[in-house]
Parts: sequence; structure tokens; C-alpha cells
Amino acid sequence: MLDHTNFHSTDDVLSDGTRNSNVSAIKEMMYLTGLEIKKGKDVISLSVGIPFYKMPEQIRKHVSKALNEKINIDKYTFLTGMPELRQAIVKDIKNKLEIEATEEEILVTPGSMGALMYTMTAILNKGDEIILFSPYFSSHVEQIKLSEGVPVAIPLIPPKDKNDAYRIDLKAVKKKISKKTKAVLICNPANPTGAVLLKRDLVALAKIIKQNGIFLITDEVYDFLVYDNREYFNIASIKELWPKVIRCWSFSKKYGMTGWRLGYLHTNKELLKHILKIHDATIVCAPHIAQEAGLAALSENMDELNANKKALEKNRNLICERLDKLPNLFSYIRPHGAYYILPKYHLKIGSIEFSKKLLYEAGVAVVPGIGFGSESDNAVRMSFGGTPKEINMAFDRIEKWWKNFQKI
Amino acid sequence: MLDHTNFHSTDDVLSDGTRNSNVSAIKEMMYLTGLEIKKGKDVISLSVGIPFYKMPEQIRKHVSKALNEKINIDKYTFLTGMPELRQAIVKDIKNKLEIEATEEEILVTPGSMGALMYTMTAILNKGDEIILFSPYFSSHVEQIKLSEGVPVAIPLIPPKDKNDAYRIDLKAVKKKISKKTKAVLICNPANPTGAVLLKRDLVALAKIIKQNGIFLITDEVYDFLVYDNREYFNIASIKELWPKVIRCWSFSKKYGMTGWRLGYLHTNKELLKHILKIHDATIVCAPHIAQEAGLAALSENMDELNANKKALEKNRNLICERLDKLPNLFSYIRPHGAYYILPKYHLKIGSIEFSKKLLYEAGVAVVPGIGFGSESDNAVRMSFGGTPKEINMAFDRIEKWWKNFQKI
Repeated sequence: MLDHTNFHSTDDVLSDGTRNSNVSAIKEMMYLTGLEIKKGKDVISLSVGIPFYKMPEQIRKHVSKALNEKINIDKYTFLTGMPELRQAIVKDIKNKLEIEATEEEILVTPGSMGALMYTMTAILNKGDEIILFSPYFSSHVEQIKLSEGVPVAIPLIPPKDKNDAYRIDLKAVKKKISKKTKAVLICNPANPTGAVLLKRDLVALAKIIKQNGIFLITDEVYDFLVYDNREYFNIASIKELWPKVIRCWSFSKKYGMTGWRLGYLHTNKELLKHILKIHDATIVCAPHIAQEAGLAALSENMDELNANKKALEKNRNLICERLDKLPNLFSYIRPHGAYYILPKYHLKIGSIEFSKKLLYEAGVAVVPGIGFGSESDNAVRMSFGGTPKEINMAFDRIEKWWKNFQKI
Repeated sequence: MLDHTNFHSTDDVLSDGTRNSNVSAIKEMMYLTGLEIKKGKDVISLSVGIPFYKMPEQIRKHVSKALNEKINIDKYTFLTGMPELRQAIVKDIKNKLEIEATEEEILVTPGSMGALMYTMTAILNKGDEIILFSPYFSSHVEQIKLSEGVPVAIPLIPPKDKNDAYRIDLKAVKKKISKKTKAVLICNPANPTGAVLLKRDLVALAKIIKQNGIFLITDEVYDFLVYDNREYFNIASIKELWPKVIRCWSFSKKYGMTGWRLGYLHTNKELLKHILKIHDATIVCAPHIAQEAGLAALSENMDELNANKKALEKNRNLICERLDKLPNLFSYIRPHGAYYILPKYHLKIGSIEFSKKLLYEAGVAVVPGIGFGSESDNAVRMSFGGTPKEINMAFDRIEKWWKNFQKI
């Protein structure tokens, strides 16, 4: 170990953005869980957003072929990404959003996280504001803070009936827009609630965005995961909002390839030219081999994607049933998309304390709600992306723990 | 194409850092070259820093096995990287630098570019200064500007004899250090000059850094490429400078795997905790499959690395010989490391104009020197990382062009 004695504090060397941000609550929980597992403890994790399924075999085969046969597979691609991949993305956008994009509007990124981080770096000066909706995805707030921006969180209006949809507080949006507001960020379907927003709310929101001449930023990572045959409406498909739209998408969740770090950013080509500078300085290009995986993902027809979705819908049903059996401990709003649920717990302790209890006393890892906004400090995020067995085992443990807890 | 008519300028939406930075001169040249090739023109490129050799077969085999057999290969690794890889890096550091690092001081990054970008984001507030030496690597300056810092370039002192070493202007360093100075950045062996700095200069520089309590940042991408049996001294191996050292390293050049986007950042564990926040918000983890490649790279013994180095040394000799044949056009300082040379040309035109002449009139792509500092606007960067054939063909073309040019 090096001598750290002449280094008492890092605080004076940090930039303001870095000092003010945090590692996301999800990663904190992963870290604590890791320590427990190291100690030999048996922990079931509902904390990480990793789906149970593997990357489809067709993609693996294509990657394998590229690895062994593509002559320049080890080398950089173009800064913006492989032309074939960008063409495939353009086609996919046309299918999904009925928007005519061009290759020059597409940047292949290291996941949607890269796309979102670039976005915040590109548009935020110190004190500039981004409106987003809470419960929000914690990394969005950290990305804003790292760029010295100010996250302005507007709570979604929870439905009275747990089966209904969250609503957008449009009046609050109008009120909160200031001269400092650079953009509204929408994550739909939402992490951590699984909320699927209503078309009428999104259309009304779009009007406000348009009237104020600000940007729309979308994190569309879960666009393929909407349950109960509900309507999914992508606000970025509203043509009137363009060119002031920045779309961020990822291959991670849909194709079970979180570790490949691949996504894309889609915006107008003028802004993209500037975002390229950040991409160049950060990573030069998305990993070449991952780009080949992405190309296969968009080119091949894969039935298993539908099967995966159905399995996740069943998981959603299962986790709701298991929560229903603990009415004194939990109440929740039914997720209609993504693979997260954010149940409230009926104990008068903070969400970090409650999460630690579940981790250390029940052997179940969840994410404290406070990571998704201060008003969620009475809730925890559970992922139902795993297997039914994992969900059942986790809830068996929680039930057992809860029985004992009530005896005390 | 979307309607961009209501979007006259991006300038008002950009952050200051993004507005003030540029895509690197190297990427600009790649772009222009790409346009020429699209038009059907035959261009030989000496502009990109990609070595001629492929990733070693042992690494490819290991990756292939991991792709098909490692159960969680598609999933995220830990934020900091695979423990086995970080252990291998720690061992490699001990071998190379005789420094006892720990795993907690290592972050696996998307290349050294990622490591450097994180560094600048982590430590720079608006107006903070980084001292670096010109001719500098253009991306370093862009990384500083994107973080709203100020690059303070101090020219290296070129030798009188073209075979001698560049020297560090220590007086100028002392003079330029201000209250705003956060760090000194050293890239040794240097891109774009191939300069290998002298141990006595680096030891003296270290004293100044230590006395002023500022950070040392190193970009050590070419640490394996020093020719003529010259001494390579890594300034980061000076223990007294720790913990205020941030080392950035990459697998890209040594192992011919520029497209895999893998490197690491090595600093004290307190600072690393903060840098993790940026990494989490940007990419979550380095690509899992690339981390497997990195593990194989550090574990296997590969004779071809030595052969590659010898071939590059021969390339260095060749490009110097070819330049010697054009004494009226070029003069140069002999590179002792890396695979770049920055010859001055004896024409009274700017380096962008000269580079365009070579591209459009001779069919040879080089990088204008102005990308590496204003005093290099009379030079161009040539890479000798390619094959001897490429170097010869490029110079045959330049010779022919020069003959014609003199006739005019």
C-alpha cells in the first residue's frame, strides 16, 4: 500500500459537480450485498436491473463469426459507429416511432448511460435546470449533478386505485419551468416504478415543452416492456418537438446484454456534431465487437424476445401476488412496464435502514427508495427481472423475517 | 429528414465547455479522408494511430471461450471491473513500476481516454489549469476544455541535433504554476512527437510537482514502445509523488486492440471513490467481453509483442530515411518512442492547408500540426504504425507530388 499520510482529504481537489454527486443507490446496495456475499452470507438480490435471460444465441453466433473472421474487428470504428449499424438503427426508428431519421442523427454510444451523460455534459452550464419526474432513476440525477446542473423533480401523481396509471402533474410542470430550464427528461416506462405514462398526459406535456422552446430528453430503455396490452406512447414520436429532442436508447435490457455497453443517441445533426466532441474525448467509439452484437440484434428475427416479455409479465403478476400476502408490511402501485416495483413499507424507519434490515436480517437485497427521490424514503425498489424462483425465495425470506419481526 | 427550420443555431443550448472544445484534428482528418474514399479516391493514411498488428491469437481464443462458456458474460461486471483483471493489473504495475498498488486503487475504464476524461471531470472547476507539454496530444486539450478547465501548454525544448532528446523547460514550469494549477499532465513516450523524456528532467519536474502539492496525471499508453535501447523512466514510479498521482493506461496500442475500448485508471483509493461516480454515470462498467480480453492480455506470454516492437522500430528507421530523401521539404527530430513523427515542412502555408494538399493532391492523409499546439502549425503528424509498404507508398506519392510542386 502506498503512503497516503500526506493526503488527508480529497475534498479540496474535487470539481463541484463531482463533489455534489453520489454513486447511485443501486450501486451502493450492490456494494453492500457484495460484502455480505464475501462474508459467506447467502443473499438473494432484487436490487439490480439485470434480466434473467441471456443474449440470444443468434447474436452470439454473429459475434463469434465477427471475432474470428472480420478483418478489422480489433480496430476502432468510425467515431459515430459502424455505418451498417446506424442504418439498422434508422430503420428501427422508422418502425417504432414513425420518424424519418438519418444516419447523421445517430451516435452509437456506450449504453443509454453514455448517451445521457453526454447530453448533460453538452447542454448544462452551472445552475441550468432539468425537469424530471419523481420517483426518478437515480443515475439521471447524478448525471445532471456531475454536469453542475440542477435536477428539478416533479412528483408523479400516484393513482388512487393501485391498478391505475400514474399521472403527470402538468400544472406543476408549468410552474417549475424557469429561464434556467434546459429540458424535460422523460423515462417511460419508468425506472423505478414501472409506470407507463398516458398518451393524453404526454401530448399535453409536449405542448408545454414546445411552447417554452426547451428540449425533450428521453430515456427509452424499457420501450419494449409494456404489459396488459396497454398503449405505449413514445413522446419523442411527436414531430412538432423536433429538432429539440434527444433520444437515448440501449440494447442492454431488451437483448439481455447489459455487459456489452451499447446504445445510441438520436438528436438533430447540428447538436450531434457537438456531442461527438464529448464522445471522442470519452471513448473514441463504442466497442467494435459490441457494435457487431447490436447489428445482429437489429437484423435477426428473434421469437424469444416475445417469450421473455411474457415471462416478465408473469413475474410482475407473481411479485404483486407475493406483496398482496403482506398487506401489513407493503402497499404498492401495480407496474405496467419495465421490471421494477416500488412498494411502500409500513414501518416508521427510513428506506436505507429498512433496506439494510432486509439485507442483514432477511438476506434479501433491495434498493432504498430515497435513491429515487426524497418522497420515496418510505419505499424500496424491487426488480422482478430475475426468475420466479428468485422472487419466491426472496419473498419466502421476507415473510419469515416479517413474522419474527412482529413477534418482537 | 426532420424539419430543422425552427432550429437555427445550437450555440445557445450548449454548455461553455462543449462550445469551446473541438473534435480532435485527428478525427477531422479521418472524416475528410473518409469523404475522399467515398468518392472513390485512393488514399493512403498516415493519420490514424492504429498499429499494423492484430490482437494476438491467444487473446482471441480466450475471448471466444468466454463468449461461449462464461455464464454471465453478457451481464455487467462490478463497477470497478472484474476482480481477476484488477488483480492482474496490480501485478503488472508491480512489475513495471515497482509500486505496490491495491485493487481498490484500480478502475477498469473504456480505454485511457475514459480514464483521462473522468480525471478532468473529477478535478476541474471552471478556470482551473492543467499544465501539459506541447506538442501535446490534441484530445488532452479537448478533455480539459470540456471540463471547463484551461490547458496551459509549455513547449518542450527541441534538441539541436535531430537525434537527441526533447527537454522539459523546468523554468517555464515553475513560472506557469499558479494557484489555479491542479495538475501536470505527462504523456511519455509522447504523441505526436515520439519524444521520450529524460529521467533527470522527470525527477526535477517531480520535485516541482511535489513542492507545489499538485497532481501528476500520466498518459502511459506508449510505455511499451521505446527504441534504440534508450532508458524509459516512468515519472509515476516516483513514490514521493503518491498519493497525488493519476495514472491512465490502455490495452489499445500494445495489444493491437484499439476497438475493444479497454484501459485502466490508477490513483489513490479516496479519489477513486469519487471518480467511480463519473464512471457509473457514463458507462456503468467497461465492456465485460473486453475485460476478458484484457485479462488474457496480461496473463499470457506473447512473443509477438517483441516482434511487433522490432517491426515498429524498423518502421521508424524507414520513415526517417524517407524523410531524409526530402531535405528541401521536411526536417524532423527522430522519435525514440511511440509510432509518430512530427516533421516540419518548409512551405509557408498553414498545416491545415498543407495537410489538405497532401490529401487532395498526393493522396496521403496526415494530421495538421496545429492540432497539437499553435507552434506546430508548420508541421504534420505522421504515424509509422502501419506497414513498411504503406509508408513507402505514401512517400513515393509525396515525392512525386513534391517534384511536380517544385515545377510549378
